[in-house]
Amino acid sequence: MSNPNPPPLSLSILGVEPLDEFICEIADFVHYMIMTRPDFGGADAKVEVEAKVGVLRDKMSGRRLALPVLVETILVPESIDLRFESNMSKNTHKHYNELLNQLKISSSQPGHPSSPLEYAHRYLIDSFYPSDSRERIRVTKDEKTGELVECVRKIRLKDLNIFSPKRAADWRISVNLEVPVPQPSGTPTHTRRKDRISYSHEEFSIDLTQVTSTASGGGAPEVLHELELEISRPSLLLSTAMKRGDLNVPEHERSAFDELIRAFVNNARILVRNAGDGWQP
Amino acid sequence: MSNPNPPPLSLSILGVEPLDEFICEIADFVHYMIMTRPDFGGADAKVEVEAKVGVLRDKMSGRRLALPVLVETILVPESIDLRFESNMSKNTHKHYNELLNQLKISSSQPGHPSSPLEYAHRYLIDSFYPSDSRERIRVTKDEKTGELVECVRKIRLKDLNIFSPKRAADWRISVNLEVPVPQPSGTPTHTRRKDRISYSHEEFSIDLTQVTSTASGGGAPEVLHELELEISRPSLLLSTAMKRGDLNVPEHERSAFDELIRAFVNNARILVRNAGDGWQP
Repeated sequence: MSNPNPPPLSLSILGVEPLDEFICEIADFVHYMIMTRPDFGGADAKVEVEAKVGVLRDKMSGRRLALPVLVETILVPESIDLRFESNMSKNTHKHYNELLNQLKISSSQPGHPSSPLEYAHRYLIDSFYPSDSRERIRVTKDEKTGELVECVRKIRLKDLNIFSPKRAADWRISVNLEVPVPQPSGTPTHTRRKDRISYSHEEFSIDLTQVTSTASGGGAPEVLHELELEISRPSLLLSTAMKRGDLNVPEHERSAFDELIRAFVNNARILVRNAGDGWQP
Repeated sequence: MSNPNPPPLSLSILGVEPLDEFICEIADFVHYMIMTRPDFGGADAKVEVEAKVGVLRDKMSGRRLALPVLVETILVPESIDLRFESNMSKNTHKHYNELLNQLKISSSQPGHPSSPLEYAHRYLIDSFYPSDSRERIRVTKDEKTGELVECVRKIRLKDLNIFSPKRAADWRISVNLEVPVPQPSGTPTHTRRKDRISYSHEEFSIDLTQVTSTASGGGAPEVLHELELEISRPSLLLSTAMKRGDLNVPEHERSAFDELIRAFVNNARILVRNAGDGWQP
């Protein structure tokens, strides 16, 4: 008979957990994009790192991507002709809303293993204007007060697509640069209204948004539903990225960037795994 | 300015690390194979779970598998026409030998984070005999003493292939059944000599083997080099598999199977990542 209560196992022959290849790859990607970002807007430019929940579709057939793999994996950029559909059904949007509301309540109870979620409901109006460069200028105002929230040129740097064959949804990580610009004059090319519920948790915000777009030429407005996870403070992202792996700083500062990305990936995974079966085809 | 020393981050919005999809998938696979294994040999049959380090090759072209993914992933069984080449170059074999010898020494030093590796060098002779079933009978004897080590019919149940695009090697997990049988008489169809260094660590053994095969019809002997990781005690594998997820047993017994598989996967990953660049083309 074998010993019924063997001593606890070591994590490995080296006594440690091997590096998580998936999280390393994403941390390396985000770090590289930050360190090589174009010098637009100087210190005012904000690096935005976000994950969107959606479905990767073959551009030709429109069908969800199929690959002969059993588990979540990161795709080689530009290797497959894909589009990422972040629009979810109204039901899935409602499902996430209920899930996150529940979590907001349970996370405020004593004994919950994490800090509480905060909550804000905002109505925003985005107006888009042409600019000298490829990217348009986005002016965001609070719908109720008319107050200017921000006026930026958003430069998309790069995306990584994550295929999740076991789940109802895939996800995409994007690194963008938001450069503040002076408010433009003239008529916007189009506007959209965002009904946004923002849940914030520590260094992250989860935005559940219903977007209603109206082209200036008229036509029926288009309604989309989206879920995004963002790293809230660009300043923290930059300061931790600068110290990544720096042997001249204490260990907790050196690893802070990787810990931030780890929590970001964990949160994205939790959101994707809870997409339910209600994802639209 | 952002706070230079923010409090440590929670692991996620739920306060916990999400389940590791990769390790779960492998644990589910091994568990399923154990629970549905054919009833050959009764209580004497041993379940063998092993990981081999090797290269996945396209059967037609002979080239290493290529998929548009950036990180290690598990392939859908039978989805691609592949062969797994576990034979490594003599140099890689030597490299592993040196690496594992070093680890044996360093793991015996005080302060090492894991228990020490043990070491055994054995010379074995396998003789193969035809049987009534598809599988041949393998008789293993100690070369020096002539002592019978085992006489079994080995039934291959199923494999999972793991593609590792960032590494010099891939790996394969196999679940087999070894059924003890009476020693056959007559002449073996072929024999092989195994020069095997076995490193054992807690519940695992790592076998680094040079195999010299000789067909009974003569011809030049073939020399192969292999690296295998095995779960050492089939009895532990079975007893923990039986209690997996059982709410009537204490938590540490309920999760013991998954912890065993986690350490197994960790060890396999560490071996694969240390294959170096010397893998044969």
